[in-house]
Formats: sequence, C-alpha cells, structure tokens
Amino acid sequence: MSQDIDTKPSTRAGITVGTSPWGPDDQLGALNYLKEDVRVDMLARADASTLYDLSVDYFVGMPSFQGAGDPGYQIFLSHTPQGTLVDNLNGAGDAVNRHVCYSGDVVFMYTHTGTHIDALNHFGVDGEIYNNFGVEENLGSRSWTKGGAEQIPPIITRGVLIDVAKLHGVECLPDSYPITVDDLQGALGAAGLQLNEGDVPFVRTGRMRYWPDGAKTLGNPPGLSLDAARWLTDQKIAAVGSDQECVEVGPSEHEDNWLPGHCHFLAETGVPMIELLNLEELSADGVDEFCLMAAPIRLRGASGAPMRPIAMALRD
Amino acid sequence: MSQDIDTKPSTRAGITVGTSPWGPDDQLGALNYLKEDVRVDMLARADASTLYDLSVDYFVGMPSFQGAGDPGYQIFLSHTPQGTLVDNLNGAGDAVNRHVCYSGDVVFMYTHTGTHIDALNHFGVDGEIYNNFGVEENLGSRSWTKGGAEQIPPIITRGVLIDVAKLHGVECLPDSYPITVDDLQGALGAAGLQLNEGDVPFVRTGRMRYWPDGAKTLGNPPGLSLDAARWLTDQKIAAVGSDQECVEVGPSEHEDNWLPGHCHFLAETGVPMIELLNLEELSADGVDEFCLMAAPIRLRGASGAPMRPIAMALRD
Amino acid sequence: MSQDIDTKPSTRAGITVGTSPWGPDDQLGALNYLKEDVRVDMLARADASTLYDLSVDYFVGMPSFQGAGDPGYQIFLSHTPQGTLVDNLNGAGDAVNRHVCYSGDVVFMYTHTGTHIDALNHFGVDGEIYNNFGVEENLGSRSWTKGGAEQIPPIITRGVLIDVAKLHGVECLPDSYPITVDDLQGALGAAGLQLNEGDVPFVRTGRMRYWPDGAKTLGNPPGLSLDAARWLTDQKIAAVGSDQECVEVGPSEHEDNWLPGHCHFLAETGVPMIELLNLEELSADGVDEFCLMAAPIRLRGASGAPMRPIAMALRD
Amino acid sequence: MSQDIDTKPSTRAGITVGTSPWGPDDQLGALNYLKEDVRVDMLARADASTLYDLSVDYFVGMPSFQGAGDPGYQIFLSHTPQGTLVDNLNGAGDAVNRHVCYSGDVVFMYTHTGTHIDALNHFGVDGEIYNNFGVEENLGSRSWTKGGAEQIPPIITRGVLIDVAKLHGVECLPDSYPITVDDLQGALGAAGLQLNEGDVPFVRTGRMRYWPDGAKTLGNPPGLSLDAARWLTDQKIAAVGSDQECVEVGPSEHEDNWLPGHCHFLAETGVPMIELLNLEELSADGVDEFCLMAAPIRLRGASGAPMRPIAMALRD
Repeated sequence: MSQDIDTKPSTRAGITVGTSPWGPDDQLGALNYLKEDVRVDMLARADASTLYDLSVDYFVGMPSFQGAGDPGYQIFLSHTPQGTLVDNLNGAGDAVNRHVCYSGDVVFMYTHTGTHIDALNHFGVDGEIYNNFGVEENLGSRSWTKGGAEQIPPIITRGVLIDVAKLHGVECLPDSYPITVDDLQGALGAAGLQLNEGDVPFVRTGRMRYWPDGAKTLGNPPGLSLDAARWLTDQKIAAVGSDQECVEVGPSEHEDNWLPGHCHFLAETGVPMIELLNLEELSADGVDEFCLMAAPIRLRGASGAPMRPIAMALRD
Repeated sequence: MSQDIDTKPSTRAGITVGTSPWGPDDQLGALNYLKEDVRVDMLARADASTLYDLSVDYFVGMPSFQGAGDPGYQIFLSHTPQGTLVDNLNGAGDAVNRHVCYSGDVVFMYTHTGTHIDALNHFGVDGEIYNNFGVEENLGSRSWTKGGAEQIPPIITRGVLIDVAKLHGVECLPDSYPITVDDLQGALGAAGLQLNEGDVPFVRTGRMRYWPDGAKTLGNPPGLSLDAARWLTDQKIAAVGSDQECVEVGPSEHEDNWLPGHCHFLAETGVPMIELLNLEELSADGVDEFCLMAAPIRLRGASGAPMRPIAMALRD
Repeated sequence: MSQDIDTKPSTRAGITVGTSPWGPDDQLGALNYLKEDVRVDMLARADASTLYDLSVDYFVGMPSFQGAGDPGYQIFLSHTPQGTLVDNLNGAGDAVNRHVCYSGDVVFMYTHTGTHIDALNHFGVDGEIYNNFGVEENLGSRSWTKGGAEQIPPIITRGVLIDVAKLHGVECLPDSYPITVDDLQGALGAAGLQLNEGDVPFVRTGRMRYWPDGAKTLGNPPGLSLDAARWLTDQKIAAVGSDQECVEVGPSEHEDNWLPGHCHFLAETGVPMIELLNLEELSADGVDEFCLMAAPIRLRGASGAPMRPIAMALRD
Repeated sequence: MSQDIDTKPSTRAGITVGTSPWGPDDQLGALNYLKEDVRVDMLARADASTLYDLSVDYFVGMPSFQGAGDPGYQIFLSHTPQGTLVDNLNGAGDAVNRHVCYSGDVVFMYTHTGTHIDALNHFGVDGEIYNNFGVEENLGSRSWTKGGAEQIPPIITRGVLIDVAKLHGVECLPDSYPITVDDLQGALGAAGLQLNEGDVPFVRTGRMRYWPDGAKTLGNPPGLSLDAARWLTDQKIAAVGSDQECVEVGPSEHEDNWLPGHCHFLAETGVPMIELLNLEELSADGVDEFCLMAAPIRLRGASGAPMRPIAMALRD
C-alpha cells in the first residue's frame, strides 16, 4: 500500500475553470455524456430481483461536516395529535381533532448532509463556476442562479464499483490515503472492467462500514488523489461518487487549494460528485457493474441536494 | 359532471385504524403489495427513450400549504465565495480562498412541500397510526419512531394514470369537485386499463397545469371522494398519487373528519400518498400506463419526504 | 391634513453614505449622542410606578414582512415531556423521564420580525454602509463583520413621543400618508416639547392599534417623509422609532430609492431604527416624554435584532 | 473547599409540583414577589454612570448545550447587496438596487442559547408545570400555552451578586462543585448583605471567565446543590441566575432527577432561572448589590428566551 515517491503530485493543483464544449448556456457539464442507448441497455440488462439502496437515512445527531459552521440535521414536529387538540392550528375543532391524529414535521439541513450530490456551483475557481458563470452576475441572495441541483436530470446509466478497499484487502483504507491511478486501474482490472463514456464510477474506501460512527466516518478521509481524479475525468465519466464525505483525499495535498478534487470535478470538468454512498452491500455481493438510477431532489440553485441512488446488478 | 344525489356519501366518514395483515411489526402497509415479478416485468418493458420527471423544483416563494402555520420553503447560503474571503470559516486563508470559490447552502422546509410522499404516520385515528402503533409509545420529541418516511422502499412498479380531467374534457376539474368511482372507472375504461395488485394509480385533476400559480394550484382541490378512495384501496394498490396537494377532495364532505381520505389511505389501509405530482406531460402524451420509479429521501420518522418520481412508457 | 405642494420632495432622494465624525473605526454612529448625564437625569426622574412595555410578543402566524421572501416567525418544540419518554434524547432513562417533564424549543425568524431595531448595516448606499465600511471587505458568508446589532449598547435616554395620529385627531393615519416636518413640529408643540441631542423620538402613526391584524398593520404605511427624517437627524437624535414596520412612509416617494428613510437614517447619519413599537398605552396616557430603556439581543453582525423597550413617565 | 459529609443530600430529590399562592390562573410564580416600592427605590439609588452588560453575544460556533440534539446558533443572510442585484427579490430593479445596499438575515436557535431566561414551563414534574398546568391540556404542537417566556414582565429589582468563586479565592470553582448553603451565606456575609423578598441573586462560579471556550465553559458545571437552591427560594427571591449553563451543579446528585434544581426552581417554586450571565465585571468591580434591569424577548409559549440584563451599582 506504499506510494511510489515519483508519483507524488506537484504541490500546486493549478485548477482552471472549464468552458463547456456544449455551449455557453450549458449547465449540465459531464452529464451531457449520459446517452439514451446506454440507458436503454442498462434497463434491459438490469436484474430487478434485488434493489441496492445506496443511501443512508437522516436523523438528529447523524454525522455531518460542521467544521465550517454548517448546521447538523434537524427535524421538528409542526403538528402532533395531542398538540392539535390544544392549539387547533388546523381549525378542525375539538371533536374532529380528538378522532383524527395529525402529525407534520419540518426539516432543516445543510444540503451536503447524508447521501447527496454536489451541484456544479458548489465549487468554482477564480470567480467563476463551470462554464464561466461569474459570481457577480449569478449569485443571488439565497442561491446561485446557475449550476444548481435542479439542473441535474435523472441519472440512469452504467455504474461501476471501483473497490479500492477490496483491492488492498482491507476493511477500510487508512486515514488520508491518496488513491492513485494505479489503484483505480488495479481495482478495475481485478473486476475485469473498464470505464466507458457516460459511466458513473463509485470509488469505495470502506469508510461507510463504520456509519453512523462519526468519529470513524468523517475527517481525514482516504480518497482520490488529484491525479486519480484527472484520470477518471479523462474517461468522460458523467458523474463520480464515493463512500466518504468528499470523494477526494483529505486534507489536500496541494498548497493552493483546500479541495482540489472538488475544483477539478465540479469547476474544471463539470462532473457532479455523489458523496456518502453506502457501497457495503455492493462490495459484499461483488456487484462491480450495475444499472444506476439516481435523481436528486430539485432544490433550485442549490449547491447540493439529497438523493437516494438505487443500483441493480446486470444480467449476463 | 353532475353527481347523482343518491351516491352522496354519508356525513360521517367513520374511519378506523387498520391492523396490518403482515404482522404486528409491519410498517410497510400496502407497500407489501409491491412484487418482484411486477418490477422485473416493468423494467423489461420500460421504454427508456423518454424519462418523464413528475416532480417540481423547490424555490423560495413556491406555493405550499401554510394554512396551519407551517413554514414556506427556504434556502440560505451558508458559504459564499466573497463571504469566505471575509470570514474564512473554512480556515483555508486568504490566498486559497481568493482562488477557490466555495458555496454552500441550507434548506428549511415542511416535509409536505413540493412533490412528496406522505408516510403512514402523517395521519392516524383514535390515538393510533396504521397497524395500531400508539401515540404514547411511539411519538418522540422530534418525530415518530414508527411509520416514518425512511421505511418506504424504492417503489418500482406499474403506474397507471387515471386522467379524470381528460375524461371530462376539461383543462382542470372545478374547485372541490369530488371524484367518484364512476369517474375512476370511466377514465380507466377510456384508457383500456384496469388496476392490478401492487399498482400505483396517479389521479389527474389538471391542477398542476397552473403550477406555480399558488392561487390556482392550492385550496379547495378537486380530488377523490371517500368512496373513490375506498374503491382504489379495494384494488390492493401499493400507493396512490395525484397532481394536487392532498389527493382527496377538499374541503371534507364528512363532518367527523377534516381529511378522511388521508385517514383512509394512511391509517386504515396503509397506503402512502404522493402529492403535487406533475402529470401534465404524461397526459399530453397519452401515457396511461408506465413503469414508475420513485424513492423518497429517507427522513427518519418523518411524516413525509420529498421525492422525484420518474415514469417511462411501456413498450408493447 | 393636506400637504403643501411646494414642500413636495424632489423625485430623487440622493442619499450618500455618511462618514462618522467619531473616527474611522466607529460603528455606533448617532448612538454616540447618548450621554451619561442624560441617563443619570432620566433615571433620577423616572416614575417607576408604571412600566410601559412597548414590545409585541412573537407567535406563529404573527404579521411580518414577507414580500421579499423572508420567512415568518416559527417556533418548534425540541423536547416534550411525552416525547422524551419515547426518545430519551437526554439519556436520563425511563424512570427519571416519567417523573421529570422536560420541554425545550427552537425559534427561527427574520431579524426584522416583531419589535426590533435595525442595525446600521441593514442598509447602505453605493457599496458601503455607514462610515464607509465596504461590502467587499466586510460582508461574510453569514453576516456583516461591521455595523451589526451586537454593537448597539443599552439605550437609556430621554424618549419623546411624537404623536402625529393624535395631532390629526385620528385613530390611525391613512395608508401611505407622508409625515411632514410640520407634523413633527406640530405634535411636539402640542406636547410642549422639543428634541434635544441624544433623544430617541418615537413617531406614532396609530398603526399598532390594529395589531396583530396583518391586513391593517402592514403594507403602505403612513410614516416619515424624507424631509421629516432629515429634520429629525438634524436634531442629533441617537435613534428613531415608530409604531409601524419601516418608520418611513411607503411606498417610496423617490424614484432612485425604494427605502430612502432607511438609507438616510442608517447609512447617511448612523441612526438605528426601532420598528413595530406598541405606542398605544403611551398615547392613551399622554406620556409624551419618558425614560427609555432598550437593549437589543446581541446578534453578532446581524442587520437587526429583537428588543423589548420599556418606558417610564417622568416625574415633574 | 471540602464538603462536610453529613451535609450530603439524600439520594432522592423528591420534587413535587408547586401550586401558586397567587391563584389558579397565576403564571408568574415568584415574579409576584417583585414590588413597586423596591423598583422605585432601586432606580432612585442606581448609579447610572456605569452600565454593566451581563449578556454575551450570539455567533456561529458559540458554545451551547447540544447534548440532547438541540441545534447550535445559526444566522444566515436572506438579502445581500450583491445578491439583490442578481435576484431582485425586493422588486426594486437594477438601477435602484445598484445604489441601495440591502442586507437582511434570519436566525435559528435553541431558546436556551446564550444569556437567557428559563420560563416556568421548561421543567415540570409528574405531568404538570408550576401551578398544576397539565401537559395534556396545555402543550400545543408548537409550544406550551401556559408558563411561557412572554409571561415574564420586565424585571427591575434588587440584584445581589453571590460571589462563591471569590469566597473560595479561585478564578473558577472546580467542575461539578456543589455550592452549599454555607457557601451562599459565606459569600453574602463577606459582602455584608442579606437577601430580601423580591431579590434576584446571581451566583458566580467563575465559569464565564473562560467564555467562549466551550471546553471550559460547558459540561460538569459547578453550581447550586439542591439544598442551596432550597435555601434561596426560602428567601422569596423573584428569580435566580448564574454564570453557567444551568444554575445548578451537574451532573445531578440525585438519582430520581437529572436536573433537580430546575425542577425545584421552575416547577416547585415558580422561580425563573437566568443562565450564562457574564458576571466577571461585577465581580472585578466588587459590585455585590445592584439595580437589575432585565426583560426577555417575548416568545409566546417558549420555554426560554434570550435576554440582555443590565446592572447598575447602587449609590450610598
């Protein structure tokens, strides 16, 4: 598991913002690689006997990134059966409310909590997000007007599990382990697979084995080195995902960028990132190739959104 | 479009709580009707060339039910590129933050906002939700411990559009129009379809044609009469949906219950309800039968959750 | 109640940002006019037999300005006695929680809800707030770093009721009535008072007579014309207040500024504004001059903060 | 600083709910001890030359009790000058918004954050809060309908600093130190004071010396033993306060009650509790007796509310 010294990345990431080859109005980025024929093929080959739910659920006290002041997940009841008898907020009156038990609730969350997708506007460089949308013209009081989560279409395509933890024969990669291009190629090779245009690779570190133990799940994540991230985007992937909080290795290996992988995927190449995926069952069952179905909640302008990706193994 | 006087429902709904035939621990209710063979068949027949996205997006000012004090949808930025230069909440320092543009946001919403599913605990009767889970033992400070949205599995099954607006030749049914059993049977007959066990019928009133005009979309909805709701659950449907905010007609036709349809579907028969579906494209394209794929965000214990249902027409 | 045509304000407000005479670091603005000797005198003369509470309480459904998307006031229980028995969030266990009834709650509010004070950073002009603090250097992701509510010291000084509604012999001034310099001088004259440096005048329109009827309380408020606002700041007042939502008349009489009074008070002259004051009792009792005690909650960086001002009549 | 073994409290607190001597509708409890003559006397003797602000300010990341899932303090901008140019949420248009810099913000907080007062409904026993208001009849969906923070009048009375840290000659009492009756009497004796009916004693542990270092400020607080709490309420105090998060010692010394001091003060004797007071300046200046002015924000039904208490030394 040692790293060859001459593969050490340079100390500067040197990310620049990407201009979309799909035109000046494009907000989809690499999602343009999604193709109807792949979707048709995947659904035709999907083994629907087992659905793999790759999401985690949301609950008060769940681990989440709070290091920069963002709130933890919260849910509150806005209506309770007993409370409704007292406050009659629905105006139905005592007799009806004694019979009917009304419950309602509200949620409050950072959009990067739980299993979610990062939208393209989550990270930019030098004043612009992907496809040169500038802060000044496109950042409203409440959210961006470009590159938000509502732009992301339903993703039905080929998913590929790149099981780096399994390649190394460990339950979980060590803290801050930078996944290399060799690791990716090794894991793909072990599975007998290669990446195609429009694929969505899910890189497994093993971290979600410990969920929801925040002490073991968050902080100093093993994840993609910038070289590995660049190799992936060279394959024309439509999106990328991982079973940790930021897909890339942390802390950053590059002095000019605290999250160079985010800047590369989102800002430079227009690749949305899916985080905190539960890949444990896919790994245990050896499902390295699958039909992926994933569609985030359409939060207009948001830098991220909850999603519940589903995978199905492929029939031969 | 007149209603025969002798089909007028009695003035009392008389709903009682349902005991699950699937055992005392069951929290799935009618979702137990979902079957693997139907799922396999639907995916095999799905025409993946067109994806129908049945959801709406979330934005500040969007219409939502606020009549009982619940908040409207809110999103706020927790990190902005320019603000990060000032506050350095991420600790990356001035040089890095001048290069890297970090944006983050939080959302705050009633769980019954936008396209969403009602979980079984949203409504109960006489102190219990579906399958006799009592308020006293199962309602926590923050949410129910039973019958919440996280219990709902991914729903991949046969969806059926019951296009009552089209049957009546109108853009939208009139306010407070109570959809009858005849309406349902008429619309199904016009489409040459019948309901099977495990289906999810989507009843179209036409209301979402006006979205997001809240004045025309919310309040006094045309929707299912209680008789019509009962006829649907007799068909062993797995869930039900509509293009308005409460599936059922409003205001209630029954003096003992302000939302008898909710009580019948959720509490009496364990049928989750999908609301504020955009059915306009399905209707325009005449897609009356489809492969439905829908999975709510897994908000533990919540009485509802956002979801983004996708439909695909079926090949012959 | 007619307005002389030649006192009609020009159509441009022409506000410019003010530079503090108290130095480049000053964030207090006109609050510097507060003086110890006045405070000592006021407390010495205060008639403590009656406390006038000039605030309103906060409740779900209370009127508030939501025209620009801001949320209405919300409160939620985070702990209930019965819920704690179910969820044991405090870890105290069943026996203890059966005995001890724990309740807790959270609030969520726009900082300009209910009786509150506007901090100097609420409005600026041409990229700067009062005393030339620029947006670029001082606006963080979460709040301003200058001119926030936490800068406001406890205000104990002479308060003066300028009862314009009473001057005109009306319960409430008509919608959008622009209060003139003559009105202010007339009301002061009727009370036999004049303004001194460091005073806080409270201008009464009568609007809070209708609280909490939002339809009559909010929108198109009678309030200060820009000329009247300028006359007040010429008197070296320390702060200003009114019994409506924005102190000034609405809508704006000036084409270049939608809230010229805010820009004049906050940005040009550094005068904090107290809004939605309940002045009904002061007016009814004819208390035109009083010892004012008011201290906002110290929300760091916030553009406004709730406060609960108290008034006491002065002994002869 | 040793504790005599035979003063060790029994292991059961044995708190019962108090019935108000001021009648069945009373929601003020010990606040009824506030008297006009004391108020008049205090204001007459107040030395207004120096105002002691006993509050802390609110900021993202401030320490707060989150052990039972409650959220930390949050503030978000709802309007920014630059964002308003992009989104025009106020409808004023580009030219006006380029000139006028509009900022607004929202806050979200647990009501027991920062310097605040606990209302009587925060803790009850055996299904009832102070004066026998039962959970079933008085706990709404959103808040209690009795005993809330809006019931608390402005408190202007004699405040007394009981400086236990100074008595012991320490910067701060050790973790979990239970303050005894002897400590209270010793500190009062050292100051040459005794408690009178209607007083509000502030018990100083020294903890706020470390604010806002959460690691030193929160958890295992030194504070009042139950015996000491009982001795205080025997003096007919109107409210009680301290410079830590719960006034009483933690963890509890009593097996039947996790917060017996809360239950005694709030539920048994109707005494509101003021927490997280900054008493450092009063202590440094030796101001042991003072005119206290304190009025919480009137959050209807809330179990607590922010407040900003002000103290003034008394003239001879």
